[in-house]
Amino acid sequence: MSEETTFVLEKNDVRNLIRDRKIIQLRGYLEEMYEADIAELMDDLNDKVLALLLFRMLPKLKAVEVFSFLSIENQREIINAISDSELPYLIDNTFFDDVIDMIEEMPAEFVNRVLINIAPEKRKLVNQFLNYPEDSAGSLMTIEYVRLTEDMTVGQALFHVRETGLKKETVYTCYITNMHEKLIGIVSLRALVTEDPALKITDIMEKDIIVVNTNDDQELVADMFKRYDLLAMPVVDNLGRLTGIITVDDILDVIEQEATEDFQIMAAMTPSETEYLDTSIFNLAKHRIIWLLVLLVSATFTGNIMKNFSNTLESLILLGMFIPMLMDTGGNAGSQSSTLIIRGLATGDIKLTDAFRVLKKEFLISLICGVVLSAVNFARILIFEPTVPALVALTVSLTLISTVVMAKVIGGLLPIAAKKLKLDPAIMAGPLITTIVDAMSLIIYFNIAQAILHI
Amino acid sequence: MSEETTFVLEKNDVRNLIRDRKIIQLRGYLEEMYEADIAELMDDLNDKVLALLLFRMLPKLKAVEVFSFLSIENQREIINAISDSELPYLIDNTFFDDVIDMIEEMPAEFVNRVLINIAPEKRKLVNQFLNYPEDSAGSLMTIEYVRLTEDMTVGQALFHVRETGLKKETVYTCYITNMHEKLIGIVSLRALVTEDPALKITDIMEKDIIVVNTNDDQELVADMFKRYDLLAMPVVDNLGRLTGIITVDDILDVIEQEATEDFQIMAAMTPSETEYLDTSIFNLAKHRIIWLLVLLVSATFTGNIMKNFSNTLESLILLGMFIPMLMDTGGNAGSQSSTLIIRGLATGDIKLTDAFRVLKKEFLISLICGVVLSAVNFARILIFEPTVPALVALTVSLTLISTVVMAKVIGGLLPIAAKKLKLDPAIMAGPLITTIVDAMSLIIYFNIAQAILHI
Repeated sequence: MSEETTFVLEKNDVRNLIRDRKIIQLRGYLEEMYEADIAELMDDLNDKVLALLLFRMLPKLKAVEVFSFLSIENQREIINAISDSELPYLIDNTFFDDVIDMIEEMPAEFVNRVLINIAPEKRKLVNQFLNYPEDSAGSLMTIEYVRLTEDMTVGQALFHVRETGLKKETVYTCYITNMHEKLIGIVSLRALVTEDPALKITDIMEKDIIVVNTNDDQELVADMFKRYDLLAMPVVDNLGRLTGIITVDDILDVIEQEATEDFQIMAAMTPSETEYLDTSIFNLAKHRIIWLLVLLVSATFTGNIMKNFSNTLESLILLGMFIPMLMDTGGNAGSQSSTLIIRGLATGDIKLTDAFRVLKKEFLISLICGVVLSAVNFARILIFEPTVPALVALTVSLTLISTVVMAKVIGGLLPIAAKKLKLDPAIMAGPLITTIVDAMSLIIYFNIAQAILHI
Repeated sequence: MSEETTFVLEKNDVRNLIRDRKIIQLRGYLEEMYEADIAELMDDLNDKVLALLLFRMLPKLKAVEVFSFLSIENQREIINAISDSELPYLIDNTFFDDVIDMIEEMPAEFVNRVLINIAPEKRKLVNQFLNYPEDSAGSLMTIEYVRLTEDMTVGQALFHVRETGLKKETVYTCYITNMHEKLIGIVSLRALVTEDPALKITDIMEKDIIVVNTNDDQELVADMFKRYDLLAMPVVDNLGRLTGIITVDDILDVIEQEATEDFQIMAAMTPSETEYLDTSIFNLAKHRIIWLLVLLVSATFTGNIMKNFSNTLESLILLGMFIPMLMDTGGNAGSQSSTLIIRGLATGDIKLTDAFRVLKKEFLISLICGVVLSAVNFARILIFEPTVPALVALTVSLTLISTVVMAKVIGGLLPIAAKKLKLDPAIMAGPLITTIVDAMSLIIYFNIAQAILHI
């Protein structure tokens, strides 16, 4: 049963069922559907009244699970629509990290209504969580985990797991803290099940634990999940006290989000976490315009270079015809190198200490590419453009080799240099590299032209 | 304890300890280190003899775990070095999916040596797994999971879990099959622990299961993991028989790999799964040169357009000075749009049916960006380049607006069109968009120039 055959109710089906008042049939469909699919259906409907109607038809506990999958917009609608007596149930049964995510995105009046309707001790925690920096481990973590104390036996611990009855993955690793709330070990549910119940928990726990600090960046957290193949990771404060855990499902989102951010920066945009269709036109324009302006102003240097060589250009206007091709090829060659290096730095495959190896590789690759490209180009000009003198074709081809070599070496090294300077390497991508390479390839072109053609 | 403070032995430390013959101390360090860190250390050493020496110093079981984290190259070295009596232990204790990954990357003589040294029934399985298409669900799955039969009670099932003693996450969901090996339900370890042991397993199992087919693409599998927040997912064949499971740690790699592939295609390279530093110069050049050639030939159209307008250009050589800036800005504006849309299509935030919304958004955004850019550019020319006539500045600025609008609309729509035509939207990224936009912006430029400047 692949995606094609999975049971999914379409928006039009819902509309038809409601129009035809086939409510019992609709309820039957909803019962069969997965929570994530119902949430997507509600988001896709683009009809708040209809979405709310569907939500009201769900059994109470399923409704809560659907809620956590909904878009912030629909979550807000639902909080708006339900009574103060229903709200605490909804909040209490939603995973704590989802509640935090929701509150972070909501306007003040909603936040207040949510905060008033949750238990005071939880309210304090919410406020604490809201203070963690964005994209930090603290902002990712949840408090739904099993905490055991150092004096427990395996049997007592297992009993405790049974009693707390937590949901999903958060139960498979249990965390042992001492009287100062310091994390001293972890134990898997598998160990609790297989070990002798009379043993002390401290005898079977793993003491060598991989942890992160609440202030660590989410990128570091994701790297550690990948590196150590973890399902969950405990988060501690500066005193080593357990403050929460991060589960792998949130890391899937982090990895995707970090890649999206890199895509945006590499295409010369200030990054944004909001989905494209949910972002206003003004905001989208704002994210793009700053870099476009910077690059526009930088590109005028290229114009100045042309002005300086205007005598050369005027004496042989034919030279101008090859400028777009030379600039494009240089830009493309540089983008290829910078993209590979930026991505390698992001995934950890390339390290700062590899700078020299990258330089050597890019130089040799660029020689191969440059020679092939300029040979093809030379042949193309001779065959298809017989009016172009051979010396001009030679000038263009020599420039092509030099441009490709220069572009690839610059494209390979600038991201590493950026990282060394603690800048984001993703800045050194296509658009910026192109601007730099454009200017330099023009200088090379006109100098070679002057030397070969004596103009 | 963040990454900075985690205990990691550096390559130089190892070299020094071995040089000073402090073997006991080294062994002590290795005992404390995580398997993933030891493997990275061995890979980083770039010294096969030293790596092998370290491997020999590890306790047997830890050695096996380190083995699964090693690079293919080092795995090959180790298989080469160990005796036939040790090999079966190593293979038997490595996760099945890691064995498959290794075999897939190895030359024939190693594969034979590995196959000879594993049990016949497992050998049959290996051969079956090697036949799954690359990047399919089948190629990702493992056989280390707990299989229960439909006649078991909860107590018997829990006893079975204790007995099989599997490692890590693969134990937390158990799979129930009927007499025809068809998957009929799943049950969590948590449920086995908390439910009454006398109950029948079929009474507490979940029957509504999310599964994939062995032939499904890994991208679909990753999407389902993200969508349903799964830790593991069963894989079935066309008859619904359970053939293996996929665990979330492999999905982290898939998500990263798919993003890397998109980065490569978007920078005009044929994608490759090998790490940059591990790929030969010849292969790296090969992946880049095809697209560079295609784009080089396409870019010559731009030269032809300039040739057609050479009279216009010759009568006012000044026009040529602004061509690089116009082309770069058009390319950048188009890349921004295409990157956002390609990424949105990849993460599922944008669907094919959103084409009209994208068109509307990109048109309005491009108007804002175009107006701001050309106003700034007009002012810049008037202030800093007093020799340029105002009408030329006007020509450039009008072209700039038109180019940005055209670039963003093309950049927004081409990826969607590609997806509609079942092509990879990532092809429609910066390099190709730039080439298209370059040609069109020149046509616009010269036409506006002819109209306004009457040349």
